Amino acid sequence: MKIPEILIIESRSDRVFERHQGGKIQVTSRHAINTQQMLRDVYTPGVARVCLAIRDNPELAWEYTSLGRTVAVVTNGTAVLGLGNIGALAGLPVMEGKAALFATFAGINAVPILIGEREPQCVVDAVCAIADSFGAIQLEDFAAPECFAIESELRRRLDKPVLHDDQHGTAVVALAALKNAVRRVGGDLSDSVVGQIGLGAAGIGIVRLLMAQGVGRVLGADRSDLAKALLCTMGGTPASIAEVMATADIVIATTGVPGLINKERVRSGQVILALSNPDPEIEPSAALAQGAAFAADGKSVNNLLAFPGLFKGALEARATGFTDGMLLAAANCIAELAGASDLVPDALDPGVHLAVAAAVRAAAESQRPAALNRALQHLPDTPLQRGNSSR
Amino acid sequence: MKIPEILIIESRSDRVFERHQGGKIQVTSRHAINTQQMLRDVYTPGVARVCLAIRDNPELAWEYTSLGRTVAVVTNGTAVLGLGNIGALAGLPVMEGKAALFATFAGINAVPILIGEREPQCVVDAVCAIADSFGAIQLEDFAAPECFAIESELRRRLDKPVLHDDQHGTAVVALAALKNAVRRVGGDLSDSVVGQIGLGAAGIGIVRLLMAQGVGRVLGADRSDLAKALLCTMGGTPASIAEVMATADIVIATTGVPGLINKERVRSGQVILALSNPDPEIEPSAALAQGAAFAADGKSVNNLLAFPGLFKGALEARATGFTDGMLLAAANCIAELAGASDLVPDALDPGVHLAVAAAVRAAAESQRPAALNRALQHLPDTPLQRGNSSR
Repeated sequence: MKIPEILIIESRSDRVFERHQGGKIQVTSRHAINTQQMLRDVYTPGVARVCLAIRDNPELAWEYTSLGRTVAVVTNGTAVLGLGNIGALAGLPVMEGKAALFATFAGINAVPILIGEREPQCVVDAVCAIADSFGAIQLEDFAAPECFAIESELRRRLDKPVLHDDQHGTAVVALAALKNAVRRVGGDLSDSVVGQIGLGAAGIGIVRLLMAQGVGRVLGADRSDLAKALLCTMGGTPASIAEVMATADIVIATTGVPGLINKERVRSGQVILALSNPDPEIEPSAALAQGAAFAADGKSVNNLLAFPGLFKGALEARATGFTDGMLLAAANCIAELAGASDLVPDALDPGVHLAVAAAVRAAAESQRPAALNRALQHLPDTPLQRGNSSR
Repeated sequence: MKIPEILIIESRSDRVFERHQGGKIQVTSRHAINTQQMLRDVYTPGVARVCLAIRDNPELAWEYTSLGRTVAVVTNGTAVLGLGNIGALAGLPVMEGKAALFATFAGINAVPILIGEREPQCVVDAVCAIADSFGAIQLEDFAAPECFAIESELRRRLDKPVLHDDQHGTAVVALAALKNAVRRVGGDLSDSVVGQIGLGAAGIGIVRLLMAQGVGRVLGADRSDLAKALLCTMGGTPASIAEVMATADIVIATTGVPGLINKERVRSGQVILALSNPDPEIEPSAALAQGAAFAADGKSVNNLLAFPGLFKGALEARATGFTDGMLLAAANCIAELAGASDLVPDALDPGVHLAVAAAVRAAAESQRPAALNRALQHLPDTPLQRGNSSR
C-alpha cells in the first residue's frame, strides 16, 4: 500500500493542480439578490421593460447588458500552447486562464467556448451562430493553416472585433520587444534584417505586423510550402534556419520545438526572441553566453501584455473590428512602457493594460468618421434614447 | 428645453434600468493573479500539465476546470417571457437575470448564449458545436412548437443534462404548488381534474409532468391543432376555456394573455394558478373574491424555485440527462418546504435551493447502476487518477 499513498501525497501537494481544482473562473451576480424588490427588478417582471427597450433600439444592449465587456475565448483545441492537437476540452484550462487574466487586467467577462469542429467552415458557422452573445471574439489555439481562413472569414461575416491571439496578440508583443531591442543596440527597425523561424499562426502574425510597421527585410524559415507561399505574398523571403541565423540581426522563433536553435549558430550582438511555450527554441542564458545582445523566451515576452488591453480598447471604442492601426498602437504603447533595461514592461502591472486599452481605443476612434464618434460618445446621455429605454 | 430635461431626470431615477446598467453578471478570477508564480501556475507554463492530464483522461476536466458547475443559458429569443419573438439580443437581460440567479442560489457559472437562428436544426447544430464548453444546457424562451423538437434532438445528441426551463422548470414548480393546493383543500391529486389553459412550452411541460406524477384527468385548452394533438398523445383531453373553467378543480394558465380568464367563470373552491409573466390571466385577488380557494400568479409560483437546484443536483450527480424521476423529486422537495399557508416556499431562501439540489442528486444517483456511482464518487481521490494527472 505504500506506493499509492505516496502518489496521493505527491499529487495533493502539487500547487499547479491545486490551483486548477474546481476551475479558475467564477460567474457572480453584480447585485445581492436577497429581496423581492431586487428579484423583481433584475428578473421578472422588471426585466421585461429592458428587453423591450433593446428590441426597439438594439444599441441599448451595450448599456443595459454585459455585452460591451463580454468576450468569447474560442478554441477547437487543434494547437494548444506547444502541445499540438489535444482537443478542445483539454484546451479548456488555457481558455479559463485567459478568462481569469481578462477579468483581472481588463474587467472583461471572458467566456471559454470550445468548438467541437475542425473543418474551418463548421467553426465559422458555429461562431457566427452564437456571436450575438459577445461584444468581441478572441480566437485561441487554432492550428495553422486553418486558423488563417477561420479568422479571415469571421472578420468578413461579423461586424465586431475578431482577433486570433496566437497570430496578432503575439505579434503585438513581439513587435514591442523588437522596438526596444533595436533601440538598445542603437539600430533602427527599418534597417534591421528580421529572421522569423516558424511560420505558423504566431510567425505569420509577426511577419504581417512587421510589414505593417515598415520593417525593411524579413526572412522566414518553415518546412511548409504553404507557409512559404504566404510569406512571399506578404513580401518576406523564404530561408533556411541556418541562413536566418547567419544573416538576421534579430531572430524570432515560434516553432514549438524546444532547443531547435543550436547555440553555436548564435552570432555576437544578435537579438533572439525564442517565444515558444512552455519551452523555448533556445534558453536565453545559452544565447547570451554565445554573445547575443539580448535574449528572451515566451515567459517574459508574453501575449498577456497585449490581449486584455486590445479587447478593452476595442470594446470601449465600439470598434467594428481590429485594424493594423490598433495593433501598432498597442505595440508602441507596450514598447514605451518598458523599463530602460527591459524589452517589455511587467505584464502584472495593471497600469500597463489600462494604457494599452487607452492607446487602442484612441487608435480606433481616430480611424472612424468624426460624426460616428460623436454619436457613440453621446449615446448613453441622449434624452431621446433614455426616453425610449424607459417605455 | 424642459421636456428633454424631465425625460433625463425620469430615466435616471428608474431603478430597474439603473440595476441593468453595465449588465448583471461578472466573470472573475478565483485567484488573485499578482505574482509571477501565480501567473505561471494558472497560465503558461503550468497550465500545460493540466491540459495534458485532461487529454489523457477527459474525466479530469470535471475536477480541474469549471466544467462541472458551468451551464449555458441558451435562447434564440423567439418567446421571451410573454413578449413574443423579440430576438435573442433583446432576450439577453433575461438570460443575464437567470445567470445572476444561478450564481446566487447554486454557485453555478451560467453563460448567456444567444443563437441567431430560428430553424430548429440550425439551433441544434449550433448548440452541439459548442456543447463541450458546458456541463449542462438550459434552453430558455424558445417558442413552441419548435422548442419541443429542439430539446428532444439535443437530448438525443448530447450525453449531458439538457432542460428547456419554460417547459420543465415551470412544470416542476406548478406541480409543487398543485400538491400543496390539493392537500389544502383536502383532496388528492390523483382524484382532481386539472385544466391547463395554454398548451405552449409551459403548458405542455406541465401536462407531461402531471401525467408522470399520475394525475387522473387533464383537460387542455389551446387554439392550436398541433398543441391539441400533443395533448392527446400524452393522454389529456382537449377542451374550451369555458369547459375547463366549468369542470376543473384546478386551473393552470400559461397563455401569456393578461386578463384572459373572465372572473365570472371562477367557481367556488377552485384553485387557480395564472402563471404568465409579467401579467397573469387573472389577478389572484379577483379570483379569490369570486370564491377561489387558492390563487397565485407567476410572481410567487416562480420557476426560480426549480432551476438552480435542478442543475446543481444534476451536475453534482454527473447525470447524463434529466429524468422524470429527477423532476418529480424536485417538485416533491419544493412542495414539502412550503409553509403551512403557502403553495411554495420562499424562492429567496438559499436553503430551498440546496434542498432541491440534494433531492435531484439523490434521484439521479438512485437511477444509476451502483458501480458507476462508486466510480464517480471516488474519482477525485483515486491514486491512479491522481498519478496520471501529475505526469
